[in-house]
Order: sequence, then C-alpha cells, then structure tokens
Amino acid sequence: MSPSFVSPWAVYQALRQRTLKLTEALSAEDQAVQSMPNASPAKWHLAHTTWFFEAVVLTAHAKGYQVFDLAFHYLFNSYYESLGERQPRDQRGLLTRPSLTQIHAYRAHVDAAMEKWLNTDGPSADAVSLFELGLHHEQQHQELLVTDMLHALSRNPLLPDWGLKLIPQTASESLTTSANTDAAISTGWRHFAGGVVAVGHGGEGFAFDNETPRHQVLLRPYALADRLVSCGEYLAFMLAGAYERPEYWLSEGWSRVKSEGWTQPIYWHAADDGDEKDWQVFGLQGLQKLDPEAPVTHLSFFEAAAFAAWAGARLPTEFEWENAAALAPDLPQLFGAAWQWTRSSYDPYPGFAPLSGAVAEYNGKFMVGQLVLRGSSAYTPTEPMPHARISYRNFFSADSRWQCTGLRLAKDSMQ
Amino acid sequence: MSPSFVSPWAVYQALRQRTLKLTEALSAEDQAVQSMPNASPAKWHLAHTTWFFEAVVLTAHAKGYQVFDLAFHYLFNSYYESLGERQPRDQRGLLTRPSLTQIHAYRAHVDAAMEKWLNTDGPSADAVSLFELGLHHEQQHQELLVTDMLHALSRNPLLPDWGLKLIPQTASESLTTSANTDAAISTGWRHFAGGVVAVGHGGEGFAFDNETPRHQVLLRPYALADRLVSCGEYLAFMLAGAYERPEYWLSEGWSRVKSEGWTQPIYWHAADDGDEKDWQVFGLQGLQKLDPEAPVTHLSFFEAAAFAAWAGARLPTEFEWENAAALAPDLPQLFGAAWQWTRSSYDPYPGFAPLSGAVAEYNGKFMVGQLVLRGSSAYTPTEPMPHARISYRNFFSADSRWQCTGLRLAKDSMQ
Amino acid sequence: MSPSFVSPWAVYQALRQRTLKLTEALSAEDQAVQSMPNASPAKWHLAHTTWFFEAVVLTAHAKGYQVFDLAFHYLFNSYYESLGERQPRDQRGLLTRPSLTQIHAYRAHVDAAMEKWLNTDGPSADAVSLFELGLHHEQQHQELLVTDMLHALSRNPLLPDWGLKLIPQTASESLTTSANTDAAISTGWRHFAGGVVAVGHGGEGFAFDNETPRHQVLLRPYALADRLVSCGEYLAFMLAGAYERPEYWLSEGWSRVKSEGWTQPIYWHAADDGDEKDWQVFGLQGLQKLDPEAPVTHLSFFEAAAFAAWAGARLPTEFEWENAAALAPDLPQLFGAAWQWTRSSYDPYPGFAPLSGAVAEYNGKFMVGQLVLRGSSAYTPTEPMPHARISYRNFFSADSRWQCTGLRLAKDSMQ
Amino acid sequence: MSPSFVSPWAVYQALRQRTLKLTEALSAEDQAVQSMPNASPAKWHLAHTTWFFEAVVLTAHAKGYQVFDLAFHYLFNSYYESLGERQPRDQRGLLTRPSLTQIHAYRAHVDAAMEKWLNTDGPSADAVSLFELGLHHEQQHQELLVTDMLHALSRNPLLPDWGLKLIPQTASESLTTSANTDAAISTGWRHFAGGVVAVGHGGEGFAFDNETPRHQVLLRPYALADRLVSCGEYLAFMLAGAYERPEYWLSEGWSRVKSEGWTQPIYWHAADDGDEKDWQVFGLQGLQKLDPEAPVTHLSFFEAAAFAAWAGARLPTEFEWENAAALAPDLPQLFGAAWQWTRSSYDPYPGFAPLSGAVAEYNGKFMVGQLVLRGSSAYTPTEPMPHARISYRNFFSADSRWQCTGLRLAKDSMQ
Repeated sequence: MSPSFVSPWAVYQALRQRTLKLTEALSAEDQAVQSMPNASPAKWHLAHTTWFFEAVVLTAHAKGYQVFDLAFHYLFNSYYESLGERQPRDQRGLLTRPSLTQIHAYRAHVDAAMEKWLNTDGPSADAVSLFELGLHHEQQHQELLVTDMLHALSRNPLLPDWGLKLIPQTASESLTTSANTDAAISTGWRHFAGGVVAVGHGGEGFAFDNETPRHQVLLRPYALADRLVSCGEYLAFMLAGAYERPEYWLSEGWSRVKSEGWTQPIYWHAADDGDEKDWQVFGLQGLQKLDPEAPVTHLSFFEAAAFAAWAGARLPTEFEWENAAALAPDLPQLFGAAWQWTRSSYDPYPGFAPLSGAVAEYNGKFMVGQLVLRGSSAYTPTEPMPHARISYRNFFSADSRWQCTGLRLAKDSMQ
Repeated sequence: MSPSFVSPWAVYQALRQRTLKLTEALSAEDQAVQSMPNASPAKWHLAHTTWFFEAVVLTAHAKGYQVFDLAFHYLFNSYYESLGERQPRDQRGLLTRPSLTQIHAYRAHVDAAMEKWLNTDGPSADAVSLFELGLHHEQQHQELLVTDMLHALSRNPLLPDWGLKLIPQTASESLTTSANTDAAISTGWRHFAGGVVAVGHGGEGFAFDNETPRHQVLLRPYALADRLVSCGEYLAFMLAGAYERPEYWLSEGWSRVKSEGWTQPIYWHAADDGDEKDWQVFGLQGLQKLDPEAPVTHLSFFEAAAFAAWAGARLPTEFEWENAAALAPDLPQLFGAAWQWTRSSYDPYPGFAPLSGAVAEYNGKFMVGQLVLRGSSAYTPTEPMPHARISYRNFFSADSRWQCTGLRLAKDSMQ
Repeated sequence: MSPSFVSPWAVYQALRQRTLKLTEALSAEDQAVQSMPNASPAKWHLAHTTWFFEAVVLTAHAKGYQVFDLAFHYLFNSYYESLGERQPRDQRGLLTRPSLTQIHAYRAHVDAAMEKWLNTDGPSADAVSLFELGLHHEQQHQELLVTDMLHALSRNPLLPDWGLKLIPQTASESLTTSANTDAAISTGWRHFAGGVVAVGHGGEGFAFDNETPRHQVLLRPYALADRLVSCGEYLAFMLAGAYERPEYWLSEGWSRVKSEGWTQPIYWHAADDGDEKDWQVFGLQGLQKLDPEAPVTHLSFFEAAAFAAWAGARLPTEFEWENAAALAPDLPQLFGAAWQWTRSSYDPYPGFAPLSGAVAEYNGKFMVGQLVLRGSSAYTPTEPMPHARISYRNFFSADSRWQCTGLRLAKDSMQ
Repeated sequence: MSPSFVSPWAVYQALRQRTLKLTEALSAEDQAVQSMPNASPAKWHLAHTTWFFEAVVLTAHAKGYQVFDLAFHYLFNSYYESLGERQPRDQRGLLTRPSLTQIHAYRAHVDAAMEKWLNTDGPSADAVSLFELGLHHEQQHQELLVTDMLHALSRNPLLPDWGLKLIPQTASESLTTSANTDAAISTGWRHFAGGVVAVGHGGEGFAFDNETPRHQVLLRPYALADRLVSCGEYLAFMLAGAYERPEYWLSEGWSRVKSEGWTQPIYWHAADDGDEKDWQVFGLQGLQKLDPEAPVTHLSFFEAAAFAAWAGARLPTEFEWENAAALAPDLPQLFGAAWQWTRSSYDPYPGFAPLSGAVAEYNGKFMVGQLVLRGSSAYTPTEPMPHARISYRNFFSADSRWQCTGLRLAKDSMQ
C-alpha cells in the first residue's frame, strides 16, 4: 500500500484519530442531528466507518473476532444490499441511542481488533486490499462529516461558529490568486493540445474502482483557467441578475431557482447594511465577511454551469481536467481549494468492472444521473496519506449545494 | 391560587424541579431529537416553558428583568403570532445549539428572577393569573415531553428502555379492574338520567379559558362503562379483523388504515413466536408483555371509534363524561389511566371568550378540526398541584396516536 | 313521498332532465375534466347518480333488471365499501371512456327501467324509500356538478363564460338587501330567546339520516343578522388587512393563508386598473364586476370565521340557525343565496343511527373533521321538489372554497 | 431541405395531415386528458406544433401575418422562456377550452398562412431553416402524441382498444427474428473494431443541434447483438426474480422498484389464468397476448440496464451504436422497432453550440440528468420524410417507462 514507509497500523491509527479530532469541538447533541435526508449525523459517520472495518475486514478475515453488537450491523450499514437490511437513510437522526459514548467504545473495540489483526495475524493480500479500501473510505467520510455538520449548523438560526481549523484550508487560501475583480472574468488561460490521451488510474497505489480501467480518450485542443472562479466574480454574476435570467440556466436548474427560491449561494448571507456588494459567508468559523478573491464554493452544478454560460466560457470535461492536471501539475488550485464541477456525467469507463464481494456495491451502482467533480477541497484529508489524486472521480447530483464545490472555466482552444 | 397553603414560590420550584426530573435518565442527544413534525425535542420543552415565564410574566411584569438571550425569543416561541417570528415547528430538532447545558442555565436564570419577583416584588393580581397559567402550561408540557420522547424512542430500532417511573402510573395500574376478557366486552354500566345539567368551569380555582363559561346543556339518559376498554378487549377486536373491515371505521379513519398500513396500535409489537395472542407493548420501560387487563392506550380517535362500533356501543360526548364525573366521582379510571376520546368536536362553549393579551392565542385559535378528550392519563402530573379536573378539555386531531389515549364506552339508556 | 300530487315517475323524469339540462352548454371535453382531487368531472356525476339508482334500487328491487355494463359498478361507485372496489377518487378525470355518449345511453337505459319499475312493477315501501333517497342524492350532485365544473373553468386561463342560468340565482339576487356598506357592518339583528328547543327532522317528508333524530337542545339568547355578509363588507375586511393579520384567524386558517398564498376569495380577481376597490368575480357568466351588495360566496370556513372575528361578531351554531329559521321563516336569504357556515362541527345527533344496508355509508362515516353549513345556495335545486329544508345539514372541510358558501353573523343577545 | 423532389408546401401538408390522422379514432374527451405531469393531451400536441410554426416562423418572417388568438401564445408555448409565460406543464389537462374544434380551426388558419408564405412570399434561407425545424418538431410530437395517449388509455380501467394502425409498426414486426427463447439469451453478435471514428451529424440534410458538431471519438473493440431483446427473454429475466434481486439494479433503479412497486414492464398484465408464463401486453390495439419473439418495449433505462446485468452483458454507448449503424446498416431492428437505451448520459458534444434566437432553447438546456436513446421506434414517423437517422439522439430520464423503449445488448470484443 502507498504509505509504505510507515506500518499499516500507524497509518490506520493516525487516520482514525483524525476522524475523532474533527468532532472534538462538537457536543453529543451536535453529532446526533440530521439536517436533511442526504446528510448524516456526525456520530453516524463515526460508527459507519467503524462498521465498514468490522463488516468487510474483521468479520471475514480476522479469526476469532467478536462482533461488538450485532444490532449495529442494521444501524450502520449505509447502502450494502448484500450485507442485509439497514436503518433508512432519512432516519439516521433518530439514533440518539447508541449514545456517542457507546460509539466511541465501538471505535475502540474495532481499533483494538484491527491492531491485533494487522500486527499479529498477518493478513492476506486480499484482506489488505479491503483494509486499504477502508482507510480511503473513512477519508471520504471525514469530508462528508465536515460538510454534513456544516449544513446542520447552517440551518440553526444562531449560525454557530464551529471553530474547526483544517490545515489544508489555510494552505489553499495561500493559493488564492490576486484576482482582478474589476474585469468580469480576468483569467489566465492554459492551453492544451488534446489528441489521444490516457486517463484513469493504471499504475501503482490505491484507486477506487470507478477510476479504472486506464484508457485512451480523444480530446480536442482546449484551454483551462489557471485558477478557480472567485467569490468576487460570482458576485458580479449575481449583480448582473444571475438568479432572475433563465437564459443562463439549464432547464432543471431554472426550475430549482424558482421552486426553491434560490437567490444566492447556499451559505451566502446579505449584509445587514443592505449594501448589495457587502456579503457574509457561513463556514467553519461561522459568518465571515466575503473575501472577493477566495474561490467561490458550495455551488450546485446548476449554478456553476450558469456562471460559465454568463462568462462566455464552459465547464471542462473530466478528461480535459485530468489531462491538464497530468501535463501541468503546477496549475493553481487543482487540489485543496474546492471540488470542481465538470461537464461530464458520471458514467462507467469502458471496461469498468466493479470489485467483487460486498464492495461490488461501492461505486458502480451509483453511475447514473450524477456529475463528476475533480480535484479536491479544503476539507479533503491530506494526512496520514493524501486522499485526492488526478484520476479521482467525485460525484454528486446537479442540485447538490452542501459540498465544498466550485468551478474552473474552460474553453475550446484555437491552438 | 389553588395550592394556597404553600407559597407560590414553593409550588413553582417543585413544579420546575419535576420537569427536570423527567429528563434525568435522558442524554443530551435524547433530548435534542425530533421524531416527527408535531413532536418536540425534550430540551425544547425545557426551554419553551421557561420562555413562557420570561415572555409572558417577567418581561411584562418584573421591573428590571434582564432577558437571558434575545435570540431565545425566536427559538422557543411556540405559536404566539403576537410575540413575533419563531423557529418553524418542524425544525425544532435542528437546535443542537443552544446546548442542553445552556438551556439548564436559562432555566436557572429565569427561576432566580421568578424567586425574586414572587418573594420580593409583590406581583399584581393580573400578573399572578399569568404566573398561574405558566404553571399549568408547564404541566401540560411535562406530559408532552413524556409522550414526545416516548415516540422518539419508539422510532429507534433498539426500542430502548427509558426507565422512567411515574408515580401516578403505578397508581393507575392499581385501578385496573379484574376484567373478564373471555366475554368480548363484559362491562358494568353506570346509568345517568341526563336532563338540563351544568358543565364547564365556574367556581374557584384555576381553569383554562376553553373550559369556560360554565353553562347548561341538555342530555338524554345515558350510560357509561365503569372502566376503560382493556388491552385484552382490544386484542379481541383485532382478532375479529379490526384493521381489515371498513364497516367499523369512519371514512377518513379507513383511509389512514390503508395509506399508513395500520394493523395494530402504534406501540404494539407482534411476539417473536408468531402467536397472534402474544403481544408486547412499548412504553416507559421498553418492551413489556401485553397485560390484557390494563387499559388500552395510544389509540387514535379513529381506532377508538371503530372499537366502539364493533362493540355495539359508542363514545360518550364530552358532556356525558363530565356530568358522570360530577355525579359519580368514584367511577374507576376517570383520571390517571388514559385520556378518554369523546365523540365531541372541539368547539367553543357558548359565550367563550379568549384571554386578553398574548395569551389570547392560548386555546381559542385551535378550536376546529380536533376532538375533545376527557380525564387524564398515567403521564399527567398530579404534583405539586393536580393538573386534571372534571371540566378539563384536552384535544388532539383524530389521527393522533402518540398520546396516552384510550376510551370508555357509552350507550343510550332506557332508564 | 313528498311531491305526492304528481306521479313518482313524473318527478323522477323532471329531475333527471334537469341534470342533463345543466350540462347542455358544456362540451364533452368540459364534462371530462377533473380540476382537483375532490372535484369530479360532470360526466362522472351524470353516471354516478345513474349508478346509484341501478345499484341501490334496480339491482336489488326490480325483478329481471339487466345491468347496463358491469364495469360501471367499478367506475361509478363513489365511496360505498360494501358495494365493492372503485375507481380512485382522484383519478376520475382519466375516464375519457366510457364516452359522454355512452353515459347518456346509460342514463336512458336506467331511466327506461325505472319507468317500468315505477309504473308497472309496484315497488315496495322499502324500495320507495331508496328511490326517494336516489332523487335527493341526484339533487345533491346537481349542485356539485355546478360547483365542480365552475372550479374547472376557473382554473382555465381563458376564464370562460359557462353561460349557465339558474332560475333560483336570479331569485336570490332579488333578495339582496340594500346594504349600507359605508359602515363596516351595518346590520339589522333579529333576536331569539333560546331555551330548550327542538331541532332536527321529525315530521313527514324526506330527510337525510344525518338530520335525525329530532331532539331538544338548550340555547342561550342570541341574535342573527337579517341578511348575509355582502361582497362590499368583505372587501372592507380585505382593505383592513384581512389576509395579513393573524389575529383574526384560526391557527390552521392562518397556515393556509401563508402556505397557499390566499389574498382574496378564490373567485375574486383584481381589476386591471389596479384600483383596490375595483374587483371582478368569476362565476357562471364568466368574469363580472363585483356587486358590493351581493352576498359574498365561495368562502372557506376559515375566511368566514376570520371575517366574523374582525366584525366583532361570531358565526351562529347550527341550532341557532335552525331555531331562527323555524321562528322567523321570513328572515332574508335563509335559502337560495349561499350555504351559511356555522360554528358547529359535523357531529352525530344524540341517538343518530345510520340507514341499513349499503346506504348505511351515506352520511355517518363522514361525521368527523367537517363543519355544518345551513340554508341553501343559488345553485341548490328547487325543482321538481325543493331540496333544502330548515333541518338540512350540509358539510364541508374548513378549507373548502369551491362551494357556494357565505356567512351570516351572529352574536349573544342581552334580550 | 432534404425531401427536395417535392415542394415544401406538399411536405408540410402531408406531415400536418398525418398528425390529424393519428387522432381520427379519438374523441374530443380522449384528446383533452392529461394522465401524468409529463404527458400532454393530444389536443395540446395539435395546438403546440401549430403554435411553433406561428411563433417561430410566421410571426417573425411572414409579413402581414395575423395571429389567430394571442391567448394561445400563453396556452401552447411549451418551455421557451424567451417567448413568454406559459400554462404550467402539469396543468395542460385543464384546457377543455379552447375546444378541439377551435384547435382544428387554429391549425387551418396557420396552414393557410403557411401555404401563402411558402408558395407566394418566397422565404429567406434563415426562415426556411426554422420551417424545416418546425417539420421535424411536429414529427417528434407525432410520436409523443401516440405515447402520451397510449399512457392515458393504459390508466383507464377499461383498457380501451385505440385501434390505431401505424404502418411502420407492421414493418418492424416483420423484422422480428426467430429468437430461440429456450436459451436465456441466444444472440448473434456483430463485432466492430473501434478505433478513432467520426460520430455526429456533419453532412447534408437536416439534423437537430444536439447531433452536432461531427467529431471523432475513440472506441475499443466491441460487439453488438444483432437484434433487440425480446419479450420472451425479458420474461425469463422476470421468472429469475428480476424485480426482487437488488444485485442487478442501479441504486436509484432499485429504489424505484421498491417505492413504486414495479413487478413487470408498465404495460404488461398478468394472465387471468395465473400462469406465470402467460402474459398480455397493452398497446395500440388494447390488450394482446404477449408475443415472446417481439422486442420488449416500454422499459425504463433502469429495467434495461438490470436486464443487461443479468444477461452478463451491458448496454452499448451511443457512439458504439452509431458506429455500428454506420458500418452495418443492415443490422436488424436499428430503426422502427424500439428506441434503444444506451449507457451514455445526454451530455453536449465537444464544440456544441445551440441555435440562435428562441430556438436556442430547443435542446441544449435539457443536457443533464438524462440518457441517450438511439434508433427509432414503431411509432416514429417515416413519412413524408424519414424522422430518424443514425446520428439522432433521443433522450429521456432513466425512470421513463411510457415511451416505446427497449434495448440491444453489447459487450467488449476480444477481436
């Protein structure tokens, strides 16, 4: 496995501790709330990631493992039909029992068994693959824990300051370019020649099944913006009537604007002084003054695509993004700022085959009706091993607004 | 005020402590959950009852009172339009902040101010009326806290044992008659002559506005069962096909049976052994074996009315109930076992006038589309002053199943 | 039966022809549309009233009767569980087949059988009761056909002029008093002493089961307005902020105002000139200038009750209304102008027993969650026999706005 | 324009007459019904296609054209934001007025104006493009008229026989291969080498904007079945537990199976004799015995994909299909049997640009969240000019079941 210079147990331990660390400033109450059907309570994330190791690794591969509590297999299975019935997704907020304390005990129980299994039992290669999947799985849930919790706090009229500091966020902030927001879109473009290029994961190291197989695609010459769209630019779009002019929107996007009363990004708040250039943004430190040079985040695909239409550009395809990231790895804000919506639907790659066993359900069964995002966000873990990579395919439905999602412009190139 | 032999402060203090005592065995997580739109989190009840004293009594009548937190007036107003905007009812479960600890501090703050006001300031008669209303208001919420929390626990797949012991419940259990459940309905009937009788509250002591004015109604001769319908009798109804035969049901009740898949009372669970006579009932001590002699509870009006139709009887009107309770106060299970559905819609009494000021909204604006219940339940407080009385009008919509509600049969009398 | 001076067949024939006459100006398309779940297509009314005679009278009582089409028993049963499965109520608009022509043939087939049965077979007394019920049933549907069709036309952006002329409507218009709309509510009051009075149907002639048994009730002294509330008065209420001020509304009524965006009666349209005193009203002759002296109609109970609260009065109980109608039958607009919302929930009378057989479901099973209306409207048939009477209990849910419903004010009397 | 050997007016006239011919056997009632939000009444199709010529061609390009009725621009605009407000899509069934007769008059009025314009005025090239778009637009609605009407009839409990005969249907039936349904999937495969191939429309003749620009894609070697999946094969899938086994389904597809109770294709009906191999299928001639050799139709993408998974194959991508159709135009059932679901999301082609003006909204704004279908169906018009072509991209959401949609299997090739 990739972080080969440290022991698997050390990696596991560091990663598991990071999950708990994310919840340090949260009360048991905070960790129990479910603010919408597709956001989960923080404590559910704590338990579900643990269940994954228990159900997929320990039960099958650790001789003599004693299940912590059989009922948890019902409570904390997410969507694995082959692993039995489960608590309905929209009712995870009802689980005030087991208590947070019991879930911490569950984590400790599984961690102890994992330590023994990794350090003493000598797992098989197959089992190590599942173990590694469990690590990356928990990293995915680390980010979801943050976005789900942030959404819950955003629905609280008090708009509380979580006070969570994520190192990568600071790092990404340093990547902010000195955008000139006087011009509507003042962007430097990087040009790429296209042609037949290879995409997807094919080499060493971990990747999810949906990144495979590596294969060739044909690209036309294209250009990508050398940074993400900023809050200041998005504000200019809003002042130009963004949410009142259907011509920028996909049909279903416009329906959402009308039916849900969208007038701004989900976490933007108008200033008390009524100045239309004066906005606040809700985030991990509560309400903060909008920084016009920071990347705009927490946009739906619909908003991202409307912005691109207004700016006279377009979104890149996922392969344009991946090819650029391969050829120009210094391209700013590829990683660590915001997941970048692409104009690619989440379809299977040619020759795609799901994993075998229970984890066959991991990615493949969601491959319809969603859009691919590339890069990574300020919430994406980088420790104890990096989570993102250039072949990584994140995916959400086009109306999703609660993720740390932004956009990078693209256009055809005459090169 | 009624408990005149003790100081108002002593009554207040005892009552407030009882509220907290109800939550002792609950975690902060338990107290934050909202299991359906019309059930509220326990901590919301703790805060809302406190807000009532603050907003209705202290702010208006206690000179120099310092509001604990202005935001709480938005968060914990229930339905008082004249007291400003409020957190939507179905989003009370989002309030993980303020924390339970902060809400306890809120209670302490208001209690201290109330002590000063009651013991030092010398409140006016008008203010004392509002204070007294606040006491009875909190008693209402004590029962709602129990039923709302029980509902939340009932939705948890673990079906946890709350372990709450309510003294009156034990008392009511002792009231259980030795019903002979071999006969479908083996009831002793108490006969009443009817005629022009007075109903409603008219004398000394506290009453809600909806119990007034006292007035005369004309009753025909009638009879009431001398006890509530038992679980064993309700089971006989079920075995006779209750939930499959439309002829027993009101039209809207039958619609509910079909659309929501009702096959039994909400808290009944079929036995694991599959024996159709062997049931368990979920309650304050978790799952318990069904006691065929205990009063059946947690029924909707629709179920109560269907049972009565099957039994060849009917539900009493609210005035038949009240007249019987006046004439035969020893009638078993009048109080302390289960609220008793009547066949009376919740209409205003002739000459009804709401209170003045903000509390004008207390009862009157709900007087349509609901049914009156009489008596009191095993969850209704009896300390530090009795909450129920013979003129008391409880009310819920006909499909409500999460309250401690049962029925007593009635019939016309040939007397 | 009541119209004893003419033959049953002549009455039947006249009544059935009147039903068809109501649809003369409507196309087959018009008669097929269902504009909301609880409004039915006109052709469904034509067929359902025919099915009633077939299923309840002919099949059971006419020897040798040949059913027209067995499938119609599924298609045109309204809500009789004991008569089998039926087309879901909200899917009646799917029935483009059978065609209107086929339904006319169905009517002719049943009419021919009814003629033979009435004139030749010599029906039994029991059967005659069901026959008479069928007549009054069809009269009820004559009014529903008008209100359901009017609703469908009101939802058409063209706001078409139906052009239907109902004789009683003209008659009722002549009853319009010369209300002085300068004063908010300038009403003459008629005072009644109350006391123990008899209500309900008890004598000769037809009545529905829900009007029985005749019984005594106790009334306090009260006064009724000597006419209905007018459009001009309701407009004054609107100009006083009716739909923006929660204090006039029942809680559930206010919820409707907000959630459904009510700002005026359902069939009122603001004038093009923007003058807030200049309104149009949609009706049987399309859009017409609002007549300030005409009774306001097509109000929900919530709107009627809010108006009464604003006017410092209240709605009468159903028994106050009935007693007044008995003592002062010349009271204007008792009948023929608008159904009058009362402050009485639709509960069973003491001693109420439904009819036997299939028609047991006729009224009783709807006796919860609705309000009683008294009088009759401009759409209520008066030929070939009067439909309304002083004991008549009409009923709708409190949010119903598509019926011809208005209000008469009441107050307590110091008499 | 493509059918260059005949006059534009002759083509127009023939096409318009075909539309009317489709409705000949339907009553005005039939043509007014809307059976679900995304199906439109037949008369709406008649009017909307006429409106398209009026709004897009005549109003802009025919000097002196008199609009038939301005209100129709509100009533019959489908989704063109730039052309003003419109009747909500789910309320098209309320339009009993204008009557079918008036809509026929509307068609005649526009036809007369088109004749004058085409034969006398000498339209510009730009205008001719819009005219040609109008022709193909009306052909699209010819098919939708059939599928929408069929759906409405399928919801009628009488399951009426429309009696519509479409010549192509007969033709397609003759294409039915003699499938051996004893073997689960006994298919002949046609192999294709893949490589860099050109797709999309690029030559002469009409195409929709979504088929352009022609561009190159890279394909791996693949094989396509030489016919569509048959009803007999789909029945074998059902008998193997299709609708009870989640492992074959995409996650959202399985959710539909459960929440909507899918147990079979939408138009299949179990036989009265209860024999699980004995089915009937509803279609243009009412209920017909299932023909095991006929292509299975009216499947959702979810059902098609589940079948492919069960069969150990997959769906083709849209480019695999198009390349095969270019290389092997004799491949059976490419056209005229059923639209064929592909595994390609409906994304824009590289370099895609919508048309200019109002018709910019024609296709582009729907390019998210849908799947591409290729080929054509038994309902697709072939006269007066062919509607389908190998670059044609039809698209529907994955849950759509009311279109004439089936599937052809694909697999990777080792060639």
